[in-house]
Amino acid sequence: MTSAITTSASPAAPSVGAHARLRPIAVGSAAVTGGLWKQRIDANADASIPEGRAQLEKAKNLLNFRIRVGDAEGEPAGPIFADSDVYKWLEAAAWEYARSQDEGLLRDQLEVTELVARAQDADGYLNTVVPARQERYGELPWSHEHYCAGHLIQAAVAQKRATGRDDLLDVAVRLADHLVATFGPGRTEDIDGHPVIEMALVELFRETGTQAYLDLARWFVDARGHGIIEARGHAPTYFSDRLPVREATTVEGHAVRAVYLAAGAADVAIETGDDALLAQLATQYASMRAEKQYVTGGLGSRWDGEAFGDAHELPNDRAYAETCAAIGGVQWAWRMLLATGEAQYADQIELMLLNGMLAGLSLPGTEYFYVNALHIREGAHPDEERSAAHGRRGWFDCACCPPNIMRTLSSLAGYLATTTDGGVQIHQFAPSTIDAGSAALRVETSYPWDGSVRVVVDEAPDGEFEIAIRVPEWAEGATLDGLPVDAGGYATVTRAWARGDELVLELPLDARFVAAHPRVDEARGQRALVRGPLVYAFEAADNAGVVLDDQSVDPASAVTAEERPDLLGGVTTLRTGDLTAIPYHLWANRGPGAMRVWLPVD
Amino acid sequence: MTSAITTSASPAAPSVGAHARLRPIAVGSAAVTGGLWKQRIDANADASIPEGRAQLEKAKNLLNFRIRVGDAEGEPAGPIFADSDVYKWLEAAAWEYARSQDEGLLRDQLEVTELVARAQDADGYLNTVVPARQERYGELPWSHEHYCAGHLIQAAVAQKRATGRDDLLDVAVRLADHLVATFGPGRTEDIDGHPVIEMALVELFRETGTQAYLDLARWFVDARGHGIIEARGHAPTYFSDRLPVREATTVEGHAVRAVYLAAGAADVAIETGDDALLAQLATQYASMRAEKQYVTGGLGSRWDGEAFGDAHELPNDRAYAETCAAIGGVQWAWRMLLATGEAQYADQIELMLLNGMLAGLSLPGTEYFYVNALHIREGAHPDEERSAAHGRRGWFDCACCPPNIMRTLSSLAGYLATTTDGGVQIHQFAPSTIDAGSAALRVETSYPWDGSVRVVVDEAPDGEFEIAIRVPEWAEGATLDGLPVDAGGYATVTRAWARGDELVLELPLDARFVAAHPRVDEARGQRALVRGPLVYAFEAADNAGVVLDDQSVDPASAVTAEERPDLLGGVTTLRTGDLTAIPYHLWANRGPGAMRVWLPVD
Repeated sequence: MTSAITTSASPAAPSVGAHARLRPIAVGSAAVTGGLWKQRIDANADASIPEGRAQLEKAKNLLNFRIRVGDAEGEPAGPIFADSDVYKWLEAAAWEYARSQDEGLLRDQLEVTELVARAQDADGYLNTVVPARQERYGELPWSHEHYCAGHLIQAAVAQKRATGRDDLLDVAVRLADHLVATFGPGRTEDIDGHPVIEMALVELFRETGTQAYLDLARWFVDARGHGIIEARGHAPTYFSDRLPVREATTVEGHAVRAVYLAAGAADVAIETGDDALLAQLATQYASMRAEKQYVTGGLGSRWDGEAFGDAHELPNDRAYAETCAAIGGVQWAWRMLLATGEAQYADQIELMLLNGMLAGLSLPGTEYFYVNALHIREGAHPDEERSAAHGRRGWFDCACCPPNIMRTLSSLAGYLATTTDGGVQIHQFAPSTIDAGSAALRVETSYPWDGSVRVVVDEAPDGEFEIAIRVPEWAEGATLDGLPVDAGGYATVTRAWARGDELVLELPLDARFVAAHPRVDEARGQRALVRGPLVYAFEAADNAGVVLDDQSVDPASAVTAEERPDLLGGVTTLRTGDLTAIPYHLWANRGPGAMRVWLPVD
Repeated sequence: MTSAITTSASPAAPSVGAHARLRPIAVGSAAVTGGLWKQRIDANADASIPEGRAQLEKAKNLLNFRIRVGDAEGEPAGPIFADSDVYKWLEAAAWEYARSQDEGLLRDQLEVTELVARAQDADGYLNTVVPARQERYGELPWSHEHYCAGHLIQAAVAQKRATGRDDLLDVAVRLADHLVATFGPGRTEDIDGHPVIEMALVELFRETGTQAYLDLARWFVDARGHGIIEARGHAPTYFSDRLPVREATTVEGHAVRAVYLAAGAADVAIETGDDALLAQLATQYASMRAEKQYVTGGLGSRWDGEAFGDAHELPNDRAYAETCAAIGGVQWAWRMLLATGEAQYADQIELMLLNGMLAGLSLPGTEYFYVNALHIREGAHPDEERSAAHGRRGWFDCACCPPNIMRTLSSLAGYLATTTDGGVQIHQFAPSTIDAGSAALRVETSYPWDGSVRVVVDEAPDGEFEIAIRVPEWAEGATLDGLPVDAGGYATVTRAWARGDELVLELPLDARFVAAHPRVDEARGQRALVRGPLVYAFEAADNAGVVLDDQSVDPASAVTAEERPDLLGGVTTLRTGDLTAIPYHLWANRGPGAMRVWLPVD
């Protein structure tokens, strides 16, 4: 069992003694300096996060805290998990401060932190909604009390790592101590209907070294899956409670719950050296990837229960593909990557970040998709608040996705690279600087629009050192410094380095038509258009005068790429036959309308 | 405006002066005497209806009435609309008595009727659940108070027509008078979230001649569709409340609500001679048929909201296709048939009865599907109580479907034929006797297994008389007495008849592969196998050793039909390549398992 405290200020940072092959780089030690992600990170800082705080006022999440502490009158508003949106915003603000050192944002988060701290009960319990509506822990399958606690803890860890301050961490420790005193074997043997506390407690263990947090996280992971949860008409499957994590061979039920649980279980496996648990999670991940993931990386096929479907059940029109599920998928894949060092998980992170998650956010950073459909018919009437047929929306009654995107974008630099004792691994390609401690690197690229990735050594490490650069699975024909490298792994160079040395990875970005597994009814006889890591979509805005529902493609025909700096913040469009496609993540930035990712073959 | 009282004892019997082209035949004047439907009608009488009463005890629907009248203690159990299941059972029992004259069943229904009558308030209000949980009419969008009243009235009309007794009719009249006094223009201007009261009030008008019932029904039809209903997180669309019936061009929202409303609106149009309303309903029906109906006749593509989807949104695995929606579809089509005399609606009734509805019932008549999927994958894990992957179930928490099937089967003879002043129209083919007043006919056939339908005159009418026999739209190449007749209409012979005269319709029952509309993603590149009116399915039980999910068909290959009197009560199976198919409605009678209606083309 490990006891050391983490050394890295990034989301999900295994402790020094943990069974992880790779170590994250502190958020403040890596930076995205330009390109597609910089646009989005800037919009996140300039628009999403400030607007997010205003939305938390408008939706009364913050008012709930003021009511709880006696500064305001009334009954708490919003869903039972309303507190969690505040905590996710606090986490976003913390990582953003690590990036920008914006003192105004620090003041802002400390102001909210103080309000949160005042709302904590003397025994450490903290919730502004549940106590006003029902008995504390009286309906844990639905009350989200541990879920809210988990997000509080994640925010506190982020604040500590990003600002060095203990303000929120003290609250988190009191809350975690209360949980340890209350739940576990021989105490209250009950679990929350919505996982996230597992990841959070492991991270708090990493931050504080308190073994009891890790023990409780492990207990929560193992207590689940025995069919004890049933609530609000949902079967145990919905809550990932049908089978124990150690027995399940796939993901099922509510998609966000399932991937958050898996990410937490991965954290437990990493910290406890539980290889059997890790292997089971790898089996589940492989099943998800092969049978239950959209071409966009989206997760969750069913509106009903926001859930994974059966294997190969992947409707395009009714795809749920919740933005939060893509984010949870990234969190799970990140932990699997740290644990195993396998490039497939970095491929997955790229797929989900650039398509499944990024589609959830408008270009200006102020509107969001909850649900990410892959097909909107012409004239479709959206009934549901969450329907993508509306276009993106400023906020939601259930506003889990917006602050989830915020915290992901503000910590995005943390996913670029990792280190080992003798090397650095570059997983995601963006114009960036990476301070790996013994070495400092600079990445120059126009990726994903261009396939050339130049890695420059700004500070050379002493002696031999390995630089590993991911070669995505789709990148057949890639070269490193002109020599062929295998797709689906890392191209590595181990030698002594001098300042100014560089490596140039060339990834072929030819557009390609992809087909789905033959068992996927909804994509049979169809093709999707992909270029590099980007999935493309045919949108009415680019295809005036045709009914997209009646179009088809010829996979043998040429696809031409065109750079369009004027369009949608700068984009490469694709043209096949008479149809034009844009990157999927950018659709619906010119109003709602018809859209297709898959098109039938002529 | 009409004022005369109906002369026909069948479900939905337009009054004498109504604007209907066809008149129904009294349930007691037509009888199914053998074949497929007789098997099912017998099982309904022998198993479903008696077992249904036991289930109403077990699920406490009847206990709720005893509590309400003070014969028992406690709080009412079950869903807010629990009373409606009792009423649908009463309706089933009434029609069944008309068929069988079973005095035990009459005693049974009168016993339940007495209990229901005692539960009525002095002012006519009648509900056992709502008053114990909330204010009367305080939450009409969700309380189903008019919905329950509607089913009570339908049962009362059935009891009157089937037994001649006024026991339940007196209750219904008091309840309807209470509704008339309470709701409508200048009174409480509110509508129930779940239509059915519209059909019911028109039928009560037909039975009693009380104009106020028709007026209120019309008001309920027109008051809807102005976006006034929002409840339990559902948008007005869910309640068919987004657009007025007179403006809507398609069906949308909750499928059962939508088709019940349309059926009620058709009743109003028929009784008031409202041709514009009828034309709008025909437009809606055409849209539903072309864009929102499964090959099985099933209605409703979405689990979420039990709802119609967008046009051509017809997933097979997640088809909802609620059994009740097929029944509501039959009710709507029946009214359109009476109003217009168009064979297309009789075709639709056949499609929905033989496939969409009948699949909802097990061969012994004791188990039910709520949801009728068209594709179950091998090893699919059913999360939901209603999932077809479980196989059929004895009852449901929400038990709307079982007694709905019961009342449909016990009144099925009413759908066989209609009359006009100078003729009779045979719409559905079964061994049967039809007493059309001036003429009595006998139908001899093994349909749907064999395509030969012999109509024999048992009692000849005076003078010239028209006998019309439906020629289904699929029956290209049909002949009447050896001469070709057009498919998609009625073959008619007008002449003088003598006892023993006969007509022989020959319908070609060659199996055929059908394709879906090219916009249906979920069936693209696939074919379904159909023979006559029956849709077939490939079930694991007949296809041992193969994984159905990986099979395909060659539409150009021969399909061989085989009579299997030993199998599933006697059935014609189809064989294509190495695969065997059975009628879709019979699947899952040998345990749950994999099943496909659509198979990819080789």
